[in-house]
Amino acid sequence: MRLIVQKYGGTSVADPDRIRHVARRVSKAYNDGHNVVVILSAMAGVTDNLIDLAGQAAQSPDLRELDVLLATGEQTTAALLAMTLRDMNYPARSMLGHQAQVVTDRDFGNAHILEIGTQAIENLLTQRNIVVVAGFQGTDSQGNITTLGRGGSDTSAVAIAAALKADVCEIYTDVDGVYTADPNICGKARKIKTISYDEMLNMASLGAKVLQIRSVGFAKKYKIPVHVRSSFNEEEGTMVVSENSGMESVMVSAVTHDKNQAWITLNKVPDQPGIAAKIFTPLADRGIVVDMIIQNTHTNGQTDLTFTVPENEYDMALEIEKRVAREIGADDIFGKKEIAKVSVIGVGMKNHSGVAATMFAALAAENINISMISTSEIRISCVVDEKYTELAVRILHTAFGLDAE
Amino acid sequence: MRLIVQKYGGTSVADPDRIRHVARRVSKAYNDGHNVVVILSAMAGVTDNLIDLAGQAAQSPDLRELDVLLATGEQTTAALLAMTLRDMNYPARSMLGHQAQVVTDRDFGNAHILEIGTQAIENLLTQRNIVVVAGFQGTDSQGNITTLGRGGSDTSAVAIAAALKADVCEIYTDVDGVYTADPNICGKARKIKTISYDEMLNMASLGAKVLQIRSVGFAKKYKIPVHVRSSFNEEEGTMVVSENSGMESVMVSAVTHDKNQAWITLNKVPDQPGIAAKIFTPLADRGIVVDMIIQNTHTNGQTDLTFTVPENEYDMALEIEKRVAREIGADDIFGKKEIAKVSVIGVGMKNHSGVAATMFAALAAENINISMISTSEIRISCVVDEKYTELAVRILHTAFGLDAE
Repeated sequence: MRLIVQKYGGTSVADPDRIRHVARRVSKAYNDGHNVVVILSAMAGVTDNLIDLAGQAAQSPDLRELDVLLATGEQTTAALLAMTLRDMNYPARSMLGHQAQVVTDRDFGNAHILEIGTQAIENLLTQRNIVVVAGFQGTDSQGNITTLGRGGSDTSAVAIAAALKADVCEIYTDVDGVYTADPNICGKARKIKTISYDEMLNMASLGAKVLQIRSVGFAKKYKIPVHVRSSFNEEEGTMVVSENSGMESVMVSAVTHDKNQAWITLNKVPDQPGIAAKIFTPLADRGIVVDMIIQNTHTNGQTDLTFTVPENEYDMALEIEKRVAREIGADDIFGKKEIAKVSVIGVGMKNHSGVAATMFAALAAENINISMISTSEIRISCVVDEKYTELAVRILHTAFGLDAE
Repeated sequence: MRLIVQKYGGTSVADPDRIRHVARRVSKAYNDGHNVVVILSAMAGVTDNLIDLAGQAAQSPDLRELDVLLATGEQTTAALLAMTLRDMNYPARSMLGHQAQVVTDRDFGNAHILEIGTQAIENLLTQRNIVVVAGFQGTDSQGNITTLGRGGSDTSAVAIAAALKADVCEIYTDVDGVYTADPNICGKARKIKTISYDEMLNMASLGAKVLQIRSVGFAKKYKIPVHVRSSFNEEEGTMVVSENSGMESVMVSAVTHDKNQAWITLNKVPDQPGIAAKIFTPLADRGIVVDMIIQNTHTNGQTDLTFTVPENEYDMALEIEKRVAREIGADDIFGKKEIAKVSVIGVGMKNHSGVAATMFAALAAENINISMISTSEIRISCVVDEKYTELAVRILHTAFGLDAE
């Protein structure tokens, strides 16, 4: 007997028919003799509708009350799945965040899990119940309802799996698993059988579509194997595991791209101590995340500084930096939205030299100009003109031997 | 400073606009210096939609899970009103059933309140918060979500008012108050300024439209003045109070009618001990409530037995009694759906003789035949042909001096 945590996303529980489909899937694992804990998202679209409703009620909805409102979405699906299972004569029981003792901090709308009291769930499992937990929600130490932010049900699932020391956390979604590249732009992309937590963490742009990145950090910390798979077929998906779990040793595992990028350049900035803080603090204050930063030092004590921000925050960022440029006496400021970040990712590259060289050569061979480069231990990212995105992904996919036969 | 509990029904919180209207009403009481606790129903139609959804998920929805589902309705309106008030800069705070410590038994779908821990609400009131409580819901001693049955928010409101020793419990609804008769059939009906708990309890058919009867029992027990009034205007409504609260001493306060009635007659039943149990136990087992019972004893040791049941349960009741009739050797069984019960109600009749005589004479003057009669201390009910219902109400309204000038 294994302890399996299964999480189903919004499209998998979008209506009573799909919920019945989920119930059959859950009952199959139960009939195989396993203990099963199910974590559910709200029905697809429901959370957006509730946010819309809150927007009609209040110009600036109070965050505590917004969480009370949003928590109804997962409460609804948890109750519906539990009653569907019971109607099929399975001993199912729903639990809300506070009943499952998912204790969080009080950062309403973006709460972090502090601890999970497992006693209540374990008691039910001991009596061979199927436990259905409303995802995305928790309670602070005072009993206020909190929610974990977008995609928070993934985090609920992994955290509960960790607390229960589950054998596996299965994330059921509307895609088959994690691919070597976006299949929509790279016809030769393959489904990845096994990927490490670190690679998954580096695949935000590709991976976030199937698994909330925060949940991966949780899985890594507690070494919970995560199985990302489709709720619409029986295929094996992608296992996200520790690096040393007998993974195939490839240099590069995947090629990702992110078009939601823009860059801003400040020209001839006086190269003084504290100048970076003056440039970046105002952005941080507005919650704008700066990704890549490049600095070219001139000989005359001036420097050119270029950085990237999410494209949808470009206008606000440029506005802020125009003011900063005047204050610090920069010569000029300009930027560009039509750019994309293309990355190759792989734990294998730690032990292989030449990955960067292969990447640059492959792009150069197609005359794709690289305007920025950043690297981490297991990732190399290049900024290119947005119009070259698809071409760049395909040639890198081929260059690193990822193409399906 | 008074402590006011206000309850708003489903039509009063049907959309964000109406919720804003409620918020203004609540803030007015708050600005007048009062402490305010608000109890809310779900938006009109939402509970029915959720029951429908449950019916799609399960043939016979598990009652525990159904309560988890239904509780989202009041959770939604409580969060929306609290955020609307906060958006207007009032310090509002929503509380769900378990947060407000509304402890009930475990009769899911029809739970009864056992106790209410007032500490949490009182702490918030002390800090001059407006407390918004989700009505209709509670928690059992194990932390399971329970609901109080149809119209349960009225009971929530009165029970919380009682626990907090509130000065008044205001029930805001879509009618102006309690009338001397149904204004739709009696043009001369007047709004009653003050009515006793006992009269209200006897006015189920008329009163239940504005106030759940169970809540009246609660109000009577704890002597909570209940003010039934419209949320759509500023008019005073009807005060439901103790009998001795300086009420106008009228003989009859109201005339009610109930068309949801049918009768069944068992002819020539052997008049033996235990025969009544054989007739009525099978009905009770199916949850069918028998209202009036008449027995005419024949000289030859046989008896005719007639009783009324709700019209919508007539077919089931007749089916059951046909079997019973065979078993006990009754001569015949028949019944009729096209009947109505017309009642006059008034605490004043306790001290006045002649009320029954006046009633019978008034009906006889119009040739309305009375087929059954039942009386309580403060009520006389007659069963008449359904087609005479409106006429009977109007002539009794006139006969007891209730007509508006």
